[in-house]
Amino acid sequence: MTKGNINVSVENIFPLIKKFLYSDHEIFLRELISNATDATLKLKHITSIGEAKVDYGNPKIEVKIDKDGKKLHIIDQGIGMTAEEVEKYINEVAFSGAEEFLDKYKEAGKDTGIIGHFGLGFYSAFMVAEKVEIITKSYKEEPAAHWTCDGSPEFSLEESDKTDRGTEIILHIAEDSTEFLEEGRIRELLMKYNKFMPIPIKFGTKEINDPDFTPKTTKDKDGKETTEPHKKITVDNIINNPNPAWTKQPADLTDEDYKSFYRELYPMQFEEPLFHIHLNVDYPFNLTGILYFPKMTNDLNLQKDKIQLYQNQVFVTDNVEGIVPEFLTMLRGVIDSPDIPLNVSRSYLQADGNVKKISSYITRKVADKLKSLFNNNREDFEKKWNDIKIVIEYGMLSEEKFFEKADAFALYPSVDGKYYTYDELYNKIKANQTDKDDKLVILYASNKDEQHSYIEAAKAKGYEVLLLDSPIVSHLMQKLESSKENISFARVDADHIDNLIKKEDTSISKLSEDEKTKLDELLKDIVPTEKFTVQLEAMDSDAAPFLITQPEFMRRMKEMQQTGGGMFGMGNMPEMYNLVVNTNSNLVSEILNTKTKKKQERLINQSLDLARLSQGLLKGEELTNFIKRSYDMIK
Amino acid sequence: MTKGNINVSVENIFPLIKKFLYSDHEIFLRELISNATDATLKLKHITSIGEAKVDYGNPKIEVKIDKDGKKLHIIDQGIGMTAEEVEKYINEVAFSGAEEFLDKYKEAGKDTGIIGHFGLGFYSAFMVAEKVEIITKSYKEEPAAHWTCDGSPEFSLEESDKTDRGTEIILHIAEDSTEFLEEGRIRELLMKYNKFMPIPIKFGTKEINDPDFTPKTTKDKDGKETTEPHKKITVDNIINNPNPAWTKQPADLTDEDYKSFYRELYPMQFEEPLFHIHLNVDYPFNLTGILYFPKMTNDLNLQKDKIQLYQNQVFVTDNVEGIVPEFLTMLRGVIDSPDIPLNVSRSYLQADGNVKKISSYITRKVADKLKSLFNNNREDFEKKWNDIKIVIEYGMLSEEKFFEKADAFALYPSVDGKYYTYDELYNKIKANQTDKDDKLVILYASNKDEQHSYIEAAKAKGYEVLLLDSPIVSHLMQKLESSKENISFARVDADHIDNLIKKEDTSISKLSEDEKTKLDELLKDIVPTEKFTVQLEAMDSDAAPFLITQPEFMRRMKEMQQTGGGMFGMGNMPEMYNLVVNTNSNLVSEILNTKTKKKQERLINQSLDLARLSQGLLKGEELTNFIKRSYDMIK
Repeated sequence: MTKGNINVSVENIFPLIKKFLYSDHEIFLRELISNATDATLKLKHITSIGEAKVDYGNPKIEVKIDKDGKKLHIIDQGIGMTAEEVEKYINEVAFSGAEEFLDKYKEAGKDTGIIGHFGLGFYSAFMVAEKVEIITKSYKEEPAAHWTCDGSPEFSLEESDKTDRGTEIILHIAEDSTEFLEEGRIRELLMKYNKFMPIPIKFGTKEINDPDFTPKTTKDKDGKETTEPHKKITVDNIINNPNPAWTKQPADLTDEDYKSFYRELYPMQFEEPLFHIHLNVDYPFNLTGILYFPKMTNDLNLQKDKIQLYQNQVFVTDNVEGIVPEFLTMLRGVIDSPDIPLNVSRSYLQADGNVKKISSYITRKVADKLKSLFNNNREDFEKKWNDIKIVIEYGMLSEEKFFEKADAFALYPSVDGKYYTYDELYNKIKANQTDKDDKLVILYASNKDEQHSYIEAAKAKGYEVLLLDSPIVSHLMQKLESSKENISFARVDADHIDNLIKKEDTSISKLSEDEKTKLDELLKDIVPTEKFTVQLEAMDSDAAPFLITQPEFMRRMKEMQQTGGGMFGMGNMPEMYNLVVNTNSNLVSEILNTKTKKKQERLINQSLDLARLSQGLLKGEELTNFIKRSYDMIK
Repeated sequence: MTKGNINVSVENIFPLIKKFLYSDHEIFLRELISNATDATLKLKHITSIGEAKVDYGNPKIEVKIDKDGKKLHIIDQGIGMTAEEVEKYINEVAFSGAEEFLDKYKEAGKDTGIIGHFGLGFYSAFMVAEKVEIITKSYKEEPAAHWTCDGSPEFSLEESDKTDRGTEIILHIAEDSTEFLEEGRIRELLMKYNKFMPIPIKFGTKEINDPDFTPKTTKDKDGKETTEPHKKITVDNIINNPNPAWTKQPADLTDEDYKSFYRELYPMQFEEPLFHIHLNVDYPFNLTGILYFPKMTNDLNLQKDKIQLYQNQVFVTDNVEGIVPEFLTMLRGVIDSPDIPLNVSRSYLQADGNVKKISSYITRKVADKLKSLFNNNREDFEKKWNDIKIVIEYGMLSEEKFFEKADAFALYPSVDGKYYTYDELYNKIKANQTDKDDKLVILYASNKDEQHSYIEAAKAKGYEVLLLDSPIVSHLMQKLESSKENISFARVDADHIDNLIKKEDTSISKLSEDEKTKLDELLKDIVPTEKFTVQLEAMDSDAAPFLITQPEFMRRMKEMQQTGGGMFGMGNMPEMYNLVVNTNSNLVSEILNTKTKKKQERLINQSLDLARLSQGLLKGEELTNFIKRSYDMIK
């Protein structure tokens, strides 16, 4: 048996990294700026504890493009490295400088805010550069060092005359990566990954009005005023906000601060968020962040991937699947947590205990916030309901814990603009809307315009009609029917109103049995029975003579299948309609008493057309003909 | 100045790989099976050229889970390695075995079909395993070798008693990767990455009916037949198809072969594809593949990311953005090309000359196929038009070359179910539909039902009305108006028909100027002028008395903005309607001659309601009231 060491040479490492990277080359900049930030925070820490007797000052990080020289520079004013440290941290790839540093300076219970692992990330530079230089001067009184490597295993290390503290990385950009010499591309990356990093990042300069200069205004002899031009000065262009709102305490932030941070996060969003939730927890995991409820549209898919995930102010991803419960991925905002494992598969992530706790913490915080908004300003909450209901309804369907909590604030709006909680609704309607079998029937409409005449018929009976129009509401009704006792939902056009809520008092038919048989035969002769099932009902005499209804069960199953769920195969079933004919209406008596079949047919067809019109079923040629006939009738 | 070699040790390599990988750990299996395939194809090659005097046989690759032992085995019957080769290929990470092999055996102009770079991919095993073993026996007469490494720089290498040729890789799965011990997870990965790899892959066994056994049927005394149970045998469960359709010649494939390959690719798709395009090119790049036109829905976003990209039968990705022109990402199918650079950024990909050529080759092939389908079986092409138009229209909008070619096969259907090419349409309508300013007006409807009465009015004049209903068609009209000469599109309800195509012969108004003024005042008094602009027109006396129209420009701009484009800000403009009143209609005369204002008002309101009904504008309470009034009028 032989034993030996695997020999890995640098010439083989870069192909290895590249092979597993595919399209993610751009992260080299994030890695290098993380290192620069790290080096600066280290200096801050050791000066603050008196270990280094140097002035921390106001250090920044500079990113500079030298397009002609095909170079990209990243310059920090941090702790720097001695030649000996370069040997240690850089030449031994993946030597974890930060960890050793933490070991040395660790203070029990205090987060030193130091990120990254120097060394590891550095080598991502070779994904885009054919040669890399490091020029670095330590805060210690030692000469600066200049390291160069062209990606071959050989490096060179010599003294440099750099006198100011800090590290400059120079990337000689490779032929296949010249995109990283474009100002627009670098700006895009800085805005994507480094927008909220804790050390100011300079990228170019900009002209501003000199704040110390006040332009003089002079009057000429005609009294006309002239103001001299403002004096311009050139200042550093700082591209990041080192102190983003989520790193502050809620008590230190105003409503306007939250809104302006939202605009910072989403400069292309013109609408203001409805409200925010500030997340802040230390134990058992570390997590800060701000979530915003935006105005929602009914398109569930459009809203995803808007929450940004950071680790210590470094952007990681905007795919928070598995970390944030699915129904909350429609929200916007920021989550910052060093405790989310990243280099694992999604399925491992979903099984991770910490991540599960984070997910249920976020759910709980959102539910608590909604409850307090509802309790503190119900009027405002009701106004926002329409914009947030889709998230809440989706949450009620997908997270049992949220379903329970939501009972306190989920609202059921009526067609008249009233908003009930479930309990309020129950108490309001239980006397009037309980049927003879003791079942509470909750009436609803999905569209006030389309179901107008049906809503009116229900309201005439003193019933309350809800307006439930979100795309997943049929699933929610199904869930409520199975979790609440002895209730059912019925859309107002599912049957005629006396059948929807059956009471003992059945009204008496004006027609005799003989007349009913005659009417039934007549109707079945004229009405297309493949489309409509004729149903004779003794209703109020002033209710509509003809009425088209669509049974609840079939319709709801079809709707549920369109949004995922329901009963398989229902989606392809044809639409089923009933034609309810009111045997007590005067028009129906008239039809029966009309002498000629031809005139009866005309009366029935016109009535059927009116009933179809009311249900939105009269279209195309039939509508055109109906209109023509109606113009003739006016004359 | 110092010079030296960067020291990279294995203990640092795995964190390095993991750091840049995030959620892609699963590819280790693809890499190991690629290596196994490689080793098998190498053996095939050297036996075929007589270099190895061994029997190639029918080698397969086996994947085996040992859940209790927490091990995953990948076993091939390929070329194998001697202890010396293990030292060379494995211990020197990233030593490119395949390249050296190719150097040795290269034959000018012949693709040896050897994939992968042994060594590089192998180390991805350490993403999921804490310890890896290789037991391997070369085809050469040398003892087998057993290599073990636990991820530390130290490995051990000893002799093994393995006697059959080939290599077995044993992964001792790490604690955070136990998902890869689940049968379902491994099956999922095999189906995703290896479904079409060229060597059969065995994963478990299955029971089938013994093909050599015919069950006997016996009759009892009552003549009742009994058949004995079928004899079962256990066979290898081969999960891949080593010879997928795209690797064959089109001449060797039937239509049914293409359809059955589609079902293999998309087992969850129940609808058959409309047609296929077989791609096959050697020069200047190598590309094979089959693209399918599925039935399209109007939701453009649902259809993306369905084309799968392979390299030498190994699945790479289903994100073909940048490789396939965007309008074709709605298609389905497979593209296999070793010439697409993968470890580069998307923006580099889009700038790559080879990739650009591939993209325009695909565009050209698709255009040619569509043209030949149109020429060979126009009837069938017309039947499919509705399902493919969205791709073609999108292509016409986004690729100039495709726009030019599409002139030969893009169809413009009429409301009567006729299909015209642009030239055919032009010739058909130019005599009748050219207006007095020599502009050809192409009339269209977006919905046969909703615009029925307007379509009828146009047809009454002998005009052809197109049915253009795809979501992006307003953009296409805009493009056609600017690229064809002196034409314009107008929706049938954009104005009354005599105004849409203005001819010299203006009809004479029955009303005097005085009467017109009186009518105008009366209408403006009763009609809500904030909603409708009143427009008096002398039309045919039997045309509709009242007509609601919506000007083309505003409506189209609003529509274009909804699908991206159009004029900024138009999306929020209110809907604008005109009320066209036919001064030559009898009803209008009657209104003028009616004595009481109250009766005039009733006539105007009823007519306005009918006109609104015709344009789909009568809704809710207004519709309910209209229906009530109409029931009363029947009686």
